[in-house]
Amino acid sequence: MNITEQAAMALAMDLLDQRKVPESHALIQSRVLVEAELKGHPSHGLQRLPRILSRLEKGLIDGKTTGEARWRSGAVLDVDGKKGLGPVVAMAALGRLEERIAETGIALAAIRNNNHLGMLAHYVEHIAARGRIGIAMSSSEALVHPHGGTRAMLGTNPIAIAIPTADRPMVLDLATSTVSMGKIHYHAANGWPIPAGWARDAEGRPTTDAARATQGAIAPFGGAKGYGLGMAIELLVAALAGSALAPDIQGTLDDRIACNKGDVLIAIDTLAAPDLALRLSAYLDAVRSSVPADPEIAVSIPGDGASRRRQASLADGFPIEVPLWDALNSLNLTPSSVL
Amino acid sequence: MNITEQAAMALAMDLLDQRKVPESHALIQSRVLVEAELKGHPSHGLQRLPRILSRLEKGLIDGKTTGEARWRSGAVLDVDGKKGLGPVVAMAALGRLEERIAETGIALAAIRNNNHLGMLAHYVEHIAARGRIGIAMSSSEALVHPHGGTRAMLGTNPIAIAIPTADRPMVLDLATSTVSMGKIHYHAANGWPIPAGWARDAEGRPTTDAARATQGAIAPFGGAKGYGLGMAIELLVAALAGSALAPDIQGTLDDRIACNKGDVLIAIDTLAAPDLALRLSAYLDAVRSSVPADPEIAVSIPGDGASRRRQASLADGFPIEVPLWDALNSLNLTPSSVL
Repeated sequence: MNITEQAAMALAMDLLDQRKVPESHALIQSRVLVEAELKGHPSHGLQRLPRILSRLEKGLIDGKTTGEARWRSGAVLDVDGKKGLGPVVAMAALGRLEERIAETGIALAAIRNNNHLGMLAHYVEHIAARGRIGIAMSSSEALVHPHGGTRAMLGTNPIAIAIPTADRPMVLDLATSTVSMGKIHYHAANGWPIPAGWARDAEGRPTTDAARATQGAIAPFGGAKGYGLGMAIELLVAALAGSALAPDIQGTLDDRIACNKGDVLIAIDTLAAPDLALRLSAYLDAVRSSVPADPEIAVSIPGDGASRRRQASLADGFPIEVPLWDALNSLNLTPSSVL
Repeated sequence: MNITEQAAMALAMDLLDQRKVPESHALIQSRVLVEAELKGHPSHGLQRLPRILSRLEKGLIDGKTTGEARWRSGAVLDVDGKKGLGPVVAMAALGRLEERIAETGIALAAIRNNNHLGMLAHYVEHIAARGRIGIAMSSSEALVHPHGGTRAMLGTNPIAIAIPTADRPMVLDLATSTVSMGKIHYHAANGWPIPAGWARDAEGRPTTDAARATQGAIAPFGGAKGYGLGMAIELLVAALAGSALAPDIQGTLDDRIACNKGDVLIAIDTLAAPDLALRLSAYLDAVRSSVPADPEIAVSIPGDGASRRRQASLADGFPIEVPLWDALNSLNLTPSSVL
């Protein structure tokens, strides 16, 4: 079935409101989840909401806090998320970075004790909308095996980067795993197999069974290089946020334990040069119009697909699995959302 | 043949001295090249020296300058390399970052009009040796085709990241291409074919001929994700340094034109927590001892191989192709180096 942005937002807002989340916080959390749906990434969309609600009910998420932030140094903000809603704490941290960046030109927020942020693209897009370069990284449960290894030792350790141009920004958002664990759960929830090479089972053997893969380990993307990038993010986040390392991380995929992963957000002023933004856009257009490998499929820029899907979803709604929509509605204590 | 670190340093120093490079600058440039050899990366080693010498002779490199730097904002250093030796300008910029980072906690240098830096690992290791996280990125000539494309539109856009631990730092250093163009040139120079999937020729067709590949385009590593990372580095460097974009970049692979790529160096203070460095080292050891896919090959951490090769090279010397060693010696106007 297809649902509209408005229906999805209304339901998510209701569900959060019923768990005593202030309206402004419910709006931020709902927006992050619905944006993922609009962009065609259901693995980071409403599928995550039941777990968030359960964590709110159990006190593993405090829906009211924005965390506690203090400047560790002139341009580095130390944030204790105090078990807040991930997007609420992160957006508050981005607001605090504005205090310093006009003077320092670069500012970084290191966040611990915070819940899952959802799609990182959302935060770097927020930074890029203010004309700055945005970088975001998170750590996560041990879900990824090393290149040449078999056991889950690293998080999926996503990184997002947005660069403003004269048109819309370029927006990169990738997990350093071959796929996100969210996508494997999405396959498992729908009873679909996964492609060979994506994952190993709990015994370290290659598998195409999504359910078995959720108990095992995902392959890093891009062999040794992708593994290296994931390892760098693993250490970088822990070294800046003081958060746990993957084998000790919990609380992003369960509703039993407080979340102890870390997040790093960076904003950087671009060079103030009159033709720079236009030069970047012209370059991206040249790449888009360069000769493709398949004459039917034009070359695209990171973020092009998400932007196109978002436009289509705003016009026509987005697809959602009926069992998920039903499950969400069953959590609605006082139905008021309109389809 | 095998040569010693001392012989390589002496020859490189002589060759640079003969081109009027001050001793302290010759030492920095020679060290970067010889370190690449010691670490087993000849593509970034002495093979690059004849081009540097030719560029010095033609005035495309000014061996005497350290560039001109000014603080663009509190924590962002704007550097005009003034055609200096790449490593000399970069090391001077790292020195300037020290002025501010104790106060700001993070500092960034954006460098334009500078020559090739060589292996980026060198710079982030320098930062990590001072207890900080180091990140380095460079842009380069258009050598890499987009994912789904056929034409060289991006640089190989390397990134290096070093994180200090209680043992030696983790050091990641990767080109966002499947291989560096240096390695393809190395294959071409030795008459070796390249593996399928590495590159396309000037007409956009897949090729295993290294010489034809040097006229065409290298594949990005890791498919769409590696391409995305390369594109992010492409834009990020240009947006910070005001340097050219790949299709307009020249001067890192030729001895005809001033170099107009860009470099970005970032240093970040880690969290001051007493057990942090030990915690990172213990984690890395746990990864190293995790079950490998091949029982004969232990899991390794980024930088382990380079560190191991460096130790061996310091003891036993490193291999060098005879034609290269002969070519270097033929450029020596007053032979004084000892083997």
